[in-house]
Amino acid sequence: MPHVSRSQSQLVVLQDGLFREVPLDPLTRKICLRLNPPSLADNLADVDRLRESLQPLLGPVTVPLPLMRAVPEACRQQDWVVTATVGMTGRGWELVDLEPGDTSGRHFGLAVDIGTTTVVAYLVDMRTGRVLDVAAGCNGQVAFGEDILTRIYLAGTTDGLAQMQKSVVGTLNCLVKQLEERCAVAPEEVSAVVASGNTTMMHFLLGLDPAQICREPYHPVVNNPGFLRAQEIGLKINPLAILYCLPGVGSYVGGDVIAGVLVSGMHRREELALFVDIGTNAEMVLGNKDWLAACAGAAGPALEGGVARVGMRAEPGAIKSVRIDQQNHRVHYQVIGKVKPKGICGSGLVDCLAEFFLNGIIDRSARFRNGRTFFTLVPAAESATGEDITVAQTDLDNLMRTKGAVNAALETLLEGVGLGIGEIERFYVAGAFGMYLDTESAITIGLYPDLPRERIVRLGNSSGEGARQVLLSNQKRLEAEEIARRITYFELNASQQFMNRFVGSKFLPHTNLDYYPTVKEKLKKRGMVLDG
Amino acid sequence: MPHVSRSQSQLVVLQDGLFREVPLDPLTRKICLRLNPPSLADNLADVDRLRESLQPLLGPVTVPLPLMRAVPEACRQQDWVVTATVGMTGRGWELVDLEPGDTSGRHFGLAVDIGTTTVVAYLVDMRTGRVLDVAAGCNGQVAFGEDILTRIYLAGTTDGLAQMQKSVVGTLNCLVKQLEERCAVAPEEVSAVVASGNTTMMHFLLGLDPAQICREPYHPVVNNPGFLRAQEIGLKINPLAILYCLPGVGSYVGGDVIAGVLVSGMHRREELALFVDIGTNAEMVLGNKDWLAACAGAAGPALEGGVARVGMRAEPGAIKSVRIDQQNHRVHYQVIGKVKPKGICGSGLVDCLAEFFLNGIIDRSARFRNGRTFFTLVPAAESATGEDITVAQTDLDNLMRTKGAVNAALETLLEGVGLGIGEIERFYVAGAFGMYLDTESAITIGLYPDLPRERIVRLGNSSGEGARQVLLSNQKRLEAEEIARRITYFELNASQQFMNRFVGSKFLPHTNLDYYPTVKEKLKKRGMVLDG
Repeated sequence: MPHVSRSQSQLVVLQDGLFREVPLDPLTRKICLRLNPPSLADNLADVDRLRESLQPLLGPVTVPLPLMRAVPEACRQQDWVVTATVGMTGRGWELVDLEPGDTSGRHFGLAVDIGTTTVVAYLVDMRTGRVLDVAAGCNGQVAFGEDILTRIYLAGTTDGLAQMQKSVVGTLNCLVKQLEERCAVAPEEVSAVVASGNTTMMHFLLGLDPAQICREPYHPVVNNPGFLRAQEIGLKINPLAILYCLPGVGSYVGGDVIAGVLVSGMHRREELALFVDIGTNAEMVLGNKDWLAACAGAAGPALEGGVARVGMRAEPGAIKSVRIDQQNHRVHYQVIGKVKPKGICGSGLVDCLAEFFLNGIIDRSARFRNGRTFFTLVPAAESATGEDITVAQTDLDNLMRTKGAVNAALETLLEGVGLGIGEIERFYVAGAFGMYLDTESAITIGLYPDLPRERIVRLGNSSGEGARQVLLSNQKRLEAEEIARRITYFELNASQQFMNRFVGSKFLPHTNLDYYPTVKEKLKKRGMVLDG
Repeated sequence: MPHVSRSQSQLVVLQDGLFREVPLDPLTRKICLRLNPPSLADNLADVDRLRESLQPLLGPVTVPLPLMRAVPEACRQQDWVVTATVGMTGRGWELVDLEPGDTSGRHFGLAVDIGTTTVVAYLVDMRTGRVLDVAAGCNGQVAFGEDILTRIYLAGTTDGLAQMQKSVVGTLNCLVKQLEERCAVAPEEVSAVVASGNTTMMHFLLGLDPAQICREPYHPVVNNPGFLRAQEIGLKINPLAILYCLPGVGSYVGGDVIAGVLVSGMHRREELALFVDIGTNAEMVLGNKDWLAACAGAAGPALEGGVARVGMRAEPGAIKSVRIDQQNHRVHYQVIGKVKPKGICGSGLVDCLAEFFLNGIIDRSARFRNGRTFFTLVPAAESATGEDITVAQTDLDNLMRTKGAVNAALETLLEGVGLGIGEIERFYVAGAFGMYLDTESAITIGLYPDLPRERIVRLGNSSGEGARQVLLSNQKRLEAEEIARRITYFELNASQQFMNRFVGSKFLPHTNLDYYPTVKEKLKKRGMVLDG
């Protein structure tokens, strides 16, 4: 099982220990059948013979026309020994493939996480649940625009939607091909795919118009597309492979969030838990086994890379962590890969904001003190570009907006259910960003609530892991659908309360410092005057 | 409602009074919905909104991906008034179309009878059950061979099967286009098709390999293909229209026979009934509400036209009935259409055999008496060809083989269930041939059993009418499937008993003349020596 896999594009895709055991009851099954050859005394039609032998095992099985055509040849090639691949749909089992002989030893599926920036594909052995290999690549749509709104706009132009679909499916097909080659698996042997991603990405994958997602009243075309076939979107695996997309709840709480809740298990526990996934939007789910509430705030692209002047993705050359010496204000930084620094990725930027604050370089409203307009992190001589790597006021302002949106969303959600921050018993952080972000820095700037540290759990790529679990377990699929049904969705795009809180959450770590006792303590220890 | 429709190719397709009333519960339904427009307080996804409004009426409705794509536009075009067309499948309802506004006033379906020679299509108003128009045409496969075995052979050659499918679908598309033009119906408005035909024709229609049908142990690829979509076979109507084929029982008892039983109603009555459809094969079903048994005997092509030297289809110029004056042996004949005779169709040929026998022109084994080798029906001067129209010994021999096969099949069937001919309380005759065949002649030659005439019922094109009933009534579809399940099928291709009877049934009307009391009486009246 791979621990951390960096694909050729060096994207971080998965962390140690994140695959969980699930009871094996996968989306597709392979069953080897020894059929009775037809005779004058038993001249049942071939397809009926197949269906009758599957019936006692699975109930009625639907055979699609292209497979009806293939049945006679498949049955006769290995003397009436065949292996049927059947796929679960909402309405019982359907035939996905029929191979001559016993091929039940080879059975593969794909779990796919479609991110706005990165697409990750896991090739899964359906017999064991093991991930055989992982491939990740840049979502081909990035060529049309880094941010999601540009792509939604483009989808509204002539052929735009088709182009968006083609590019994401193209990325997927490229990853799948790599996996198939590396693991010596034929495309036809892949009989099931589960895809997870935000609502817009799911729309693009299926060729659905996302126009209404960003228009009041902000609703998707569909939240639960159900069971489709791979050929319907041009995926180059078994054309009849079952394609299932994790259900979403609304325009800004998609299948990736449902996957996260599923992987956390918060929907099955007594304790009050909060799940947070911070990207362009901060999506969060609060609740426990009795209730679930969700919302999403537009966090802005500050942490997505490519927006801050020196911002970049978590690729080689990115400064991933920053510490500033309390005594001499000297900068210590770590870079991804053994190369000179080129820019700063999200976790580095969060560190900067926290360290600037703790060292009095900025004030509580994140403004540089003493007339300073920027801070030089890396002098030109040390950088890969030959220019200074600096953090400017605008970079800090962008990050403050993100933090403000997260704060405001969480507080609106908590108030909606009448609870306080301190009552959160478990705090789940999703995504690669959550994986590498320094928890102390995130708390110092107020991005995370100031909870006892043992309550904070990093889930890693819970979107991909949720897809894998649903691929392997019908029970997990039903759980995911149940989660989507149970969640009460608070639409914040039009919430005045959210806007008020957003405008009010301009301070580090929070307007009310008492919500952040450990940060207050830190500041006190440093003898800093609390100027809020 | 059309009574007798002769299409441009002048094929007889339907007879007066053959459409029966059925309870309307059609294969597809149209439902006009006034959806609540989405708002911030109700921002359900479009597809979910549609599904939720259909759910209370129909239970869960599956929406195929191409329609998911169309939902947002359809909903917004007429201010959230839409008309959903839903189609019945074995596992509940699926969306077939979604139109803006209220289009529930227009709802069309097709009932299709695929004959080896003739294809007939009925355009049906699904709201009333009325047949709006009928079109018939020659099955495009005839170009590859009049008889079915030639076509099965060709299907085994490169691209042969694809060609067979293409030609029958081409014929259908041509008929459908005529109907749509004549009735001003758009192709997309046709949302359901029910097809009926013999097992080989159904295989060709669906592109299934018929090779095993004529090889021991004589089994089809599938008997009940279930619910398909029009686009799967290239039918040019609504691509997502539901396509249902009447289920068959075996290689020689297909959906057309099931349709016949359904139309007869024999499966619901106490009385013992026999259903017979005589074409290249003589297919028959015996039974009542408690049991059903079927078999088929190869009748040969004697009655199909184009085989006897002067044989032809029931087209203009065909001699359809023949009487020979008992006194002077003068021939009186009737021709289809107001034209000179060109040849003889099946009903004319049966008349000839009967009249030759009753007038002592042939003996009981159907051999010409007095050294004669042929009989001139029409002298050259009266014929359209300028040549004599004659009936030769070979023509009689072919017809005798057909009659022998029918006799042998019926007797094998009766013996199989331990009953005698006289116990048949109702005798249903299917097909256009059955419609125009003179009952007395058919009995005289022993093709039909010698039953009290009031027990004999002509069903006309029961294959097409069965398709129409299933199109219009879910109950009728379930009945058809029940009939197919209930029928016990006797395979005669390998039955020695059948072969013995076939060889033994060489006499007119029957080896045992006592089975034919009215014929015996007729012969007596004519003072004919019984030379059997």
